Amino acid sequence: MSVPRIQLNPATVMAPVPVVLVSCRGPEGSEYAKPNLITLAWAGIVCSEPPMVSISVRKSRYSHRQIQESGEFVINLVNEKLLRQTDFCGVKSGRDIDKFAACHLTACPAAAMLHAPAVAESPLSLSCQVRQVLELGSHDCFIGEIVAVEAAADLMDEKNKLCLDRAGLVAYCHGDYRSLGSILGFFGYSVAGDEVLARRMPKKAARRSPAKGKKSD
Amino acid sequence: MSVPRIQLNPATVMAPVPVVLVSCRGPEGSEYAKPNLITLAWAGIVCSEPPMVSISVRKSRYSHRQIQESGEFVINLVNEKLLRQTDFCGVKSGRDIDKFAACHLTACPAAAMLHAPAVAESPLSLSCQVRQVLELGSHDCFIGEIVAVEAAADLMDEKNKLCLDRAGLVAYCHGDYRSLGSILGFFGYSVAGDEVLARRMPKKAARRSPAKGKKSD
Repeated sequence: MSVPRIQLNPATVMAPVPVVLVSCRGPEGSEYAKPNLITLAWAGIVCSEPPMVSISVRKSRYSHRQIQESGEFVINLVNEKLLRQTDFCGVKSGRDIDKFAACHLTACPAAAMLHAPAVAESPLSLSCQVRQVLELGSHDCFIGEIVAVEAAADLMDEKNKLCLDRAGLVAYCHGDYRSLGSILGFFGYSVAGDEVLARRMPKKAARRSPAKGKKSD
Repeated sequence: MSVPRIQLNPATVMAPVPVVLVSCRGPEGSEYAKPNLITLAWAGIVCSEPPMVSISVRKSRYSHRQIQESGEFVINLVNEKLLRQTDFCGVKSGRDIDKFAACHLTACPAAAMLHAPAVAESPLSLSCQVRQVLELGSHDCFIGEIVAVEAAADLMDEKNKLCLDRAGLVAYCHGDYRSLGSILGFFGYSVAGDEVLARRMPKKAARRSPAKGKKSD
């Protein structure tokens, strides 16, 4: 069922999007060599093999120079516990303050990074090496390859499988931070067989629609 | 408070990310000139001015050729009502079936697009023109400028302000579709003044932390 639609001005109203704490540091000896944090919602996955992400940063930001000079950044996922600090790191500049100290966060060594630290309190950190920089306008888009991942040990189940649903992650939606609600389905659930549905979505399996089929690529 | 961390293999574990229905069509007269849909989670915002997005699509996908040949695509946001169709469009190929027909969705003209249709049932559609294509590996990343936006009229409030929180949007998190939960804060809430907090977050204003300050860029 479609409803009447109206036209709005072009704007970045895609939602929900991630909200992440990016940690970075300029190369040793440079004037940018202090650990820093920047909060970004302009971030996304851009490739599976190799695993790659994009983050977009204004040229005027202190972190922009750090990432450009070091060729590195770490994406730290944000849970509800980290939200106040995350918001704070989005509105303050690392030129003026030490955000790690101001937020009582810990800059720890990040796997596979020479310069950029990780946030020890984050549930999961992605160490990224810059592969390309696109100058798009207000923002430069850094395309980074994910070269290492570190996760809080308590996110692993007894089979050593990552359970990100336990992390309490936060989404960003048109100016608001939102918690994640219930699990509505899994990738492929609309064409899954009865056995898989009964195992993974016992409640929905009972009232599934008659249409089903097989996955294609 | 930090917990013990373990290292995992590099992988695309950034979360939550959007899940969107992308509609596209090859140019009139080409063999790809039928309306098609593809579900993507590898999508993000990459620039504010001009407003730009990225979507990443495997070269093997039927929609890849359509987007490449037309230079256009439409990002249709996904709400809970559209989720089953959205999942279905992520596992079936437009080479084999008419996904609009199979999903009982309506391909309607999209503002500012010559070729790509929009999904009439989506709460909000972003019409995008391709500006760059990055060949990254498994996926090509299309960088698109948002040239028009259309929203369901019932998402506008009495002051004609877009209220995306009413849309019931869905996030994608490590293989699962998740509803959006409660509003935890707004951009800048950690440094907002008492008056703003009392108006926008009456519950939190009463128990805010003592740290406050002013926004910087």
